[in-house]
Amino acid sequence: MESSLWDELQRRMGELRDFGSVVGLLTWDQETFMPKGSAEARAVQLSAMQALIHERLTDPRLGELLEAAAADADETRAAMVRNLARERARAVKVPPRLVRELAETQARAVEAWRAARSERRFALFQPWLERLLELRREQADAIGGGAERYDALLDAHEPGMSVARIEPLFAELERALVPIVATLADGQRPPAWDYAGLRFPADAQWEFTLHLLGEMGFDLERGRQDRSTHPFTDGIHRDDVRLTTRIAEEEPFLAIFSTIHEGGHGLYEQNLPADHARDPIGQAASMGLHESQSRLWENMIGRSLAFWRRQLPALRRFFPAQLEGVEPEAIYAAVNQVRRSPIRTDADEVTYNLHILLRFQLELAMLRGDLRVADLPGAWNERMRRDVGIEPLHDGEGVLQDIHWAWAEFGYFPTYTLGNLYAAILRERIDVDLGGLDRVIEEGSLHAVRDWLVERVHAVGHRWDAEEIVERATGQKLTVAPFLRYLREKYGALYGAAL
Amino acid sequence: MESSLWDELQRRMGELRDFGSVVGLLTWDQETFMPKGSAEARAVQLSAMQALIHERLTDPRLGELLEAAAADADETRAAMVRNLARERARAVKVPPRLVRELAETQARAVEAWRAARSERRFALFQPWLERLLELRREQADAIGGGAERYDALLDAHEPGMSVARIEPLFAELERALVPIVATLADGQRPPAWDYAGLRFPADAQWEFTLHLLGEMGFDLERGRQDRSTHPFTDGIHRDDVRLTTRIAEEEPFLAIFSTIHEGGHGLYEQNLPADHARDPIGQAASMGLHESQSRLWENMIGRSLAFWRRQLPALRRFFPAQLEGVEPEAIYAAVNQVRRSPIRTDADEVTYNLHILLRFQLELAMLRGDLRVADLPGAWNERMRRDVGIEPLHDGEGVLQDIHWAWAEFGYFPTYTLGNLYAAILRERIDVDLGGLDRVIEEGSLHAVRDWLVERVHAVGHRWDAEEIVERATGQKLTVAPFLRYLREKYGALYGAAL
Repeated sequence: MESSLWDELQRRMGELRDFGSVVGLLTWDQETFMPKGSAEARAVQLSAMQALIHERLTDPRLGELLEAAAADADETRAAMVRNLARERARAVKVPPRLVRELAETQARAVEAWRAARSERRFALFQPWLERLLELRREQADAIGGGAERYDALLDAHEPGMSVARIEPLFAELERALVPIVATLADGQRPPAWDYAGLRFPADAQWEFTLHLLGEMGFDLERGRQDRSTHPFTDGIHRDDVRLTTRIAEEEPFLAIFSTIHEGGHGLYEQNLPADHARDPIGQAASMGLHESQSRLWENMIGRSLAFWRRQLPALRRFFPAQLEGVEPEAIYAAVNQVRRSPIRTDADEVTYNLHILLRFQLELAMLRGDLRVADLPGAWNERMRRDVGIEPLHDGEGVLQDIHWAWAEFGYFPTYTLGNLYAAILRERIDVDLGGLDRVIEEGSLHAVRDWLVERVHAVGHRWDAEEIVERATGQKLTVAPFLRYLREKYGALYGAAL
Repeated sequence: MESSLWDELQRRMGELRDFGSVVGLLTWDQETFMPKGSAEARAVQLSAMQALIHERLTDPRLGELLEAAAADADETRAAMVRNLARERARAVKVPPRLVRELAETQARAVEAWRAARSERRFALFQPWLERLLELRREQADAIGGGAERYDALLDAHEPGMSVARIEPLFAELERALVPIVATLADGQRPPAWDYAGLRFPADAQWEFTLHLLGEMGFDLERGRQDRSTHPFTDGIHRDDVRLTTRIAEEEPFLAIFSTIHEGGHGLYEQNLPADHARDPIGQAASMGLHESQSRLWENMIGRSLAFWRRQLPALRRFFPAQLEGVEPEAIYAAVNQVRRSPIRTDADEVTYNLHILLRFQLELAMLRGDLRVADLPGAWNERMRRDVGIEPLHDGEGVLQDIHWAWAEFGYFPTYTLGNLYAAILRERIDVDLGGLDRVIEEGSLHAVRDWLVERVHAVGHRWDAEEIVERATGQKLTVAPFLRYLREKYGALYGAAL
């Protein structure tokens, strides 16, 4: 490709990333420091920026440049062009009328969902969900490209992934998990630290979370942590990564695991390839891979016995009275309790995936036309009873519990489980490469884990799609076996059960 | 004008304001919470947004729409069109090459200025200042429109103002101020509270500044206050106005007067006309009028005896030990000490204007070609000796003390003095309309002052230029008499001097 044309393309790529960073800051501020009286003004600013990005992405000149560059033999350039061309195709193929209608319907659907949830009546939300599904079907058909409609939606969050690939994997996972959950939830619980009635002052919790970020190797010169109601990570730029955590004085593990979880996301964002900070390689490869980072840190490291052997003395310095006489084993047991709960966000790491599989299968059936929206609550409750072994008392703690569908997010839920699967594959390889992950954790060498992840995952950026990144890093294809091995080993030992 | 064309114009106006808001947030964040490692990324984001705004402003289609709308008879629309057409003309007339060169030269000139100031050697900065002047001359000539070159620069900060208008006013002010300063600086000082050696904990200072913002009627639901090294106000949107203050534990008045000053700016921003939040009427009319608000609040209200009669009990609740036995009169004397200082930002409200007049006259002479840059330090020191009665020990506390010229800001300094002049005119009228300003202050009815300013100044927005706004609000044209009356009355009484 002619170098002046490539320069123009690269300039446009850079500008798109800059505008994306700006949206990142607007969003972060909205959830943290923005005065509440400016909510309406902020919505207008965000929509002006999003319209701008759409304008630039659908500019015919960008299409010409991408086409001209498609012939470029250079592998790195080809990856940039592939990523941006995919994003552009999604923007170009969907008529502006549909984009507007989706945005407007979503905004009103969220209101309807809130009312429905607070009244615990699915019927109030039903017509909105029907309309959102119709619009998403139309959008998916406009985008096309996959073997079936759902693929176009999944691809937005997990590029390169398909229903054909995950449906059998998820079915296999479900068959294995149901009996494991039944055994653990009904079995004898190991003795756990009981901290009911104790109080953990917020300032000390805050300091401990900063200590944890330091242990993980999160760079507070190129990022920060604040507090928000719903913890999140906002990668404004690889040098400007913002985490939030949530502190409750009676529940110390809320802040601890929120920080570790978001810290895992944050490490990924901070260590994306510096050379590609302003082009389409310098971003996370998928939501599933992103989630693999947060879950590997939160569950596989943060909820390990080795971790608490190492970190309990540090935590004790902040809360000496509350932790008097408490052993690491008691903390380990406390943070790994398997319980049947109707609520996804309360779920332990074993049952969690059953909540996801249920949502995936139901949304897939709705998009395929195999399940009517009117029949959704019944299907939900039946599946909950069958798989998790508990039935919601009402729609508020059942089908209405998550905001995702009110946001018209179909194809997002599977990335949570993909994250767990990827994490387990990565974990097995780290264990081998570092000569024992638990030993490394107990020695307090978490930076070695971070360095491994940086080299094999983070610094790759979006040069390849997620599954290929994991395969190149570990030699393993995506399967459910490593995750099941991890669960059976950990929970078998902790619960003294044969899984 | 055809309604579809007007709609398009209004849409473009709105978008420009939205992008301006985004720049506001990026800037605020840069000075408050941004991790220091992301300075470079932020500079790139800001420059992408500024290039975007320039692109939209110079879009030929906008020119056509403005031309078509110029014929519109509606007074409100005419004001919008006039403001935006002025802004567009400034953008269109300057070649992109010059914009780039100015930006690059400024960036490097600031570095040179920092080095020169730290080494106290003007010679290091001299070639940069020469180059900046050349570029600004070229820019001013490209913009044109005024009776002389300086007008085009002044107009950027004070639309509608001209050298022909302010030069005689400033000369008159100088003649009056020099003897007043001499009398006060050499005279007997009234007995003042001496707080040397006392410590004022930062948390309590912070709480007191929030109390003051409440007293002033600043709406913390539509704005916030944070801390920064250099206090500033950022009106991201009228519903999102962000102030900063600076706290020093040994100098309580730093935070107090920073907050009142920025609070004055903030009230203006919060009370711009709501109906025009996204068009060119909904913004401050000029920097001078903006400064009139901060200075009216800081000096004319915050440094009044009435204010301390009212606020001392509140301050005492935060610092009972430090303020034991202290009377309002002693605070009043402490915050109104007239002293000869070579430093503008340390100056009291009487000498302050002499620092500004000196800068205005020197930069005007340089732009006219009447003063060579090489002769600037000599001219500076001579004027300081003659007017303020003190000579800088070196260039660091002389000609190199301000960053403005390194930013290539010529035509900005006069707005500080214009602010004082406008403030005094407004103050006289408020005094009449509210039946005694001091009484209102002492009764704690600062909201009445705010309401007057909202109605007569803030809510007018940029419907007219600053001088016209002040004239419509007060019936007075811009003169120096009210400001001189204010100073003579206040300091004559406080110092027991005939001024």
